[in-house]
Amino acid sequence: MTLFTLLDYAAVLVFALTGALVASRAQLDIVGFFFFACLTAVGGGTLRDVLLDRNPVFWIADPAYLAVACAAAVLVFFTAHRFESRYRVLLWLDACALGIAVAAGSGVAAALGHSVAVVLVMGMITGCMGGLMRDVVSNEVPLILNQGELYVTCAFAGSAATALAWTLGATPGLAALACAAVTIGLRAGSLSFGWRLPVYKSRPPRA
Amino acid sequence: MTLFTLLDYAAVLVFALTGALVASRAQLDIVGFFFFACLTAVGGGTLRDVLLDRNPVFWIADPAYLAVACAAAVLVFFTAHRFESRYRVLLWLDACALGIAVAAGSGVAAALGHSVAVVLVMGMITGCMGGLMRDVVSNEVPLILNQGELYVTCAFAGSAATALAWTLGATPGLAALACAAVTIGLRAGSLSFGWRLPVYKSRPPRA
Amino acid sequence: MTLFTLLDYAAVLVFALTGALVASRAQLDIVGFFFFACLTAVGGGTLRDVLLDRNPVFWIADPAYLAVACAAAVLVFFTAHRFESRYRVLLWLDACALGIAVAAGSGVAAALGHSVAVVLVMGMITGCMGGLMRDVVSNEVPLILNQGELYVTCAFAGSAATALAWTLGATPGLAALACAAVTIGLRAGSLSFGWRLPVYKSRPPRA
Repeated sequence: MTLFTLLDYAAVLVFALTGALVASRAQLDIVGFFFFACLTAVGGGTLRDVLLDRNPVFWIADPAYLAVACAAAVLVFFTAHRFESRYRVLLWLDACALGIAVAAGSGVAAALGHSVAVVLVMGMITGCMGGLMRDVVSNEVPLILNQGELYVTCAFAGSAATALAWTLGATPGLAALACAAVTIGLRAGSLSFGWRLPVYKSRPPRA
Repeated sequence: MTLFTLLDYAAVLVFALTGALVASRAQLDIVGFFFFACLTAVGGGTLRDVLLDRNPVFWIADPAYLAVACAAAVLVFFTAHRFESRYRVLLWLDACALGIAVAAGSGVAAALGHSVAVVLVMGMITGCMGGLMRDVVSNEVPLILNQGELYVTCAFAGSAATALAWTLGATPGLAALACAAVTIGLRAGSLSFGWRLPVYKSRPPRA
Repeated sequence: MTLFTLLDYAAVLVFALTGALVASRAQLDIVGFFFFACLTAVGGGTLRDVLLDRNPVFWIADPAYLAVACAAAVLVFFTAHRFESRYRVLLWLDACALGIAVAAGSGVAAALGHSVAVVLVMGMITGCMGGLMRDVVSNEVPLILNQGELYVTCAFAGSAATALAWTLGATPGLAALACAAVTIGLRAGSLSFGWRLPVYKSRPPRA
C-alpha cells in the first residue's frame, strides 16, 4: 500500500495549502490556519475511510499526516501575502490536490475489489469532499457550484480512468498516474481555456 | 428485509429527483446533476448506516441505488424546463421523499430493536439529512428553516407513528405505511393549508 | 468511565441550550428547537465516536442524552424571551459548553491511549464540531470565523492541557479540570478583554 500512502501524503499537503489560503482570506490566526488546513486535507479521505469501514482512519493510524498539514499552514501563514492573487493560486493548487486525491480515493476502492460504481463514487468523494467542507465552513461559494467550469466532472472522469485502467490490468501506479493526469488535465483545460459541458438552461426564467 | 430495501429504493429515487431539481436551479452540467442527485438520495441513509454501524453502507453493498439516482438526474436534466415552477415541484417531491425516507429510517431502527428514542432520531436523520445536505451544499436556505411550515415536525410525527405501530405489534409493512401517511399528510397539510405549530416569538426585537 | 459520562452529559446540556437559542433566533417551532438542541448537543461527540470507532455511539447506547437535550430545548422555548440579548447569552453558554466538550473529547482519546496529535484533534472536534454544525445548518456565521476572537485556539490550548496533564501522570479528573479551565478561561478572556492572537493580514487588498 506504499503507493496509496504516498498519494495520501501528497493530497494532504496540497489540500492543506488550499485550506490555509482560505484561512488567509478569512484573516484568521495561526490556529485557524491549522484548523482549515487539517479539515481540507483529511476531510475527503476521512469520509472515504468511514464509508469503507477502513479502521482506523488514516490520520489516526499515522498522525504524521496532521503534522504535514500544519506545516503547510505555517508556510502559508508567513508567505501568502507575497502572491498577487491568492484566489488564482488557490484554484490551481486545488486542481492539483483534486487530481491526487481522486487517484488516492478511487485507487483504494479498486484495490479493495469494489464495483466500478463504488470506485467512481469513492474517487469523487475523496477528491471533492475535503474542498467542499472547506468552502461550506468558511462561507465561500463551493467551487463545485462555479458555473461554466468543470469540477465534479474532472473527478468523475479521473475515477473512470482508474476503473478502466484496473479493468485493463494496469499496475496500481499506472492507474493512479492516468487518473491524476485526466483529472488535472481536464480541470486545467477548464480553468485556462474554458472547457465545459453544456449546462442546464431553463427556458422560463429561473423559478 | 425486502420491505426496507424497497423503501430505500423509493426514497433514493424521489430524493434524487429533488437533488437534480436543485442542480437545475444552480444551472450545473450533467455531472453536477449526478452529484446532487446522489448526495441527496443517499445522504440520509448513509448517515443512518454509519451511526447504526450497519456494514457495508447500503449503496456500497448494492450500487444499483446509485444507478437509480443517476437515471433520475438524467430525467430531470432533459425535462425540468417543462415545469412552470420548479420550486413548487421540488417542495412536493421533497414531501414524498421525506415520508418514504422517514419510514425507511425509523423502520430499520425498530427492526434492529433499538429504543423508542433512537427510532425517533433515526427516522428524523434518514428523512431530513439528505435534503439538508443538498440545501447546505447548494447554498439554498434549508427547508427545515422555512418559517410557518412543518418539516422536522412531520418527520418526528412519522417516526412516532412507527414507534407506536411497532409497540402495538403491527407488521413492519403496516408500520411503514402509517409512518409515511402521517409524515406526508402533515407536510401536505402544511404546504396546502398552512398547518403549523406555534413558533417561538421573542417579545423584544430579534437579538 | 463515570467521569467521561458526566462530562458528556454536561456538554450535551449546555450545547443543547445554545442550539435551542439558535432555534429561537430562527423563530422555529418546538420540534425545530428539539432538532437544533440535539444536533448541537451530540454532533461533536458523535463525530468523535465514529472516528474512533467507539461502538455504539454514546447517545445510541444511552438515549437519556437526547432526553436531556430535549428538556433543555423546552426550557429555552419558554424562557428565552426574558433575556435582553440572546446572542450574548449564546456566546457565554457556548464558551462553557466548549470547555466541557473539549475536556470530554480529549480525555476519551487520552484514555484510549492515542497519540498526542490525536488527543489534540479529538478535543478540537468534540468541542467545535457540534457548534459548527449548528451554525452551518442555521445559516449563521460560524463562531470559529469571528475575527479578533479566540475560538479554535481555546479548544487547542485546552486539548494541549489534557495531553500535558496525562503525560505528567495526573488523574483523569484533574486533567479534565485543567482542560476545561484553560479552554473557558481563554475564551472568556477573549470575549471580555479582547485577548487574541495576531491574525493574518494581507498587505495587498483582499484578493
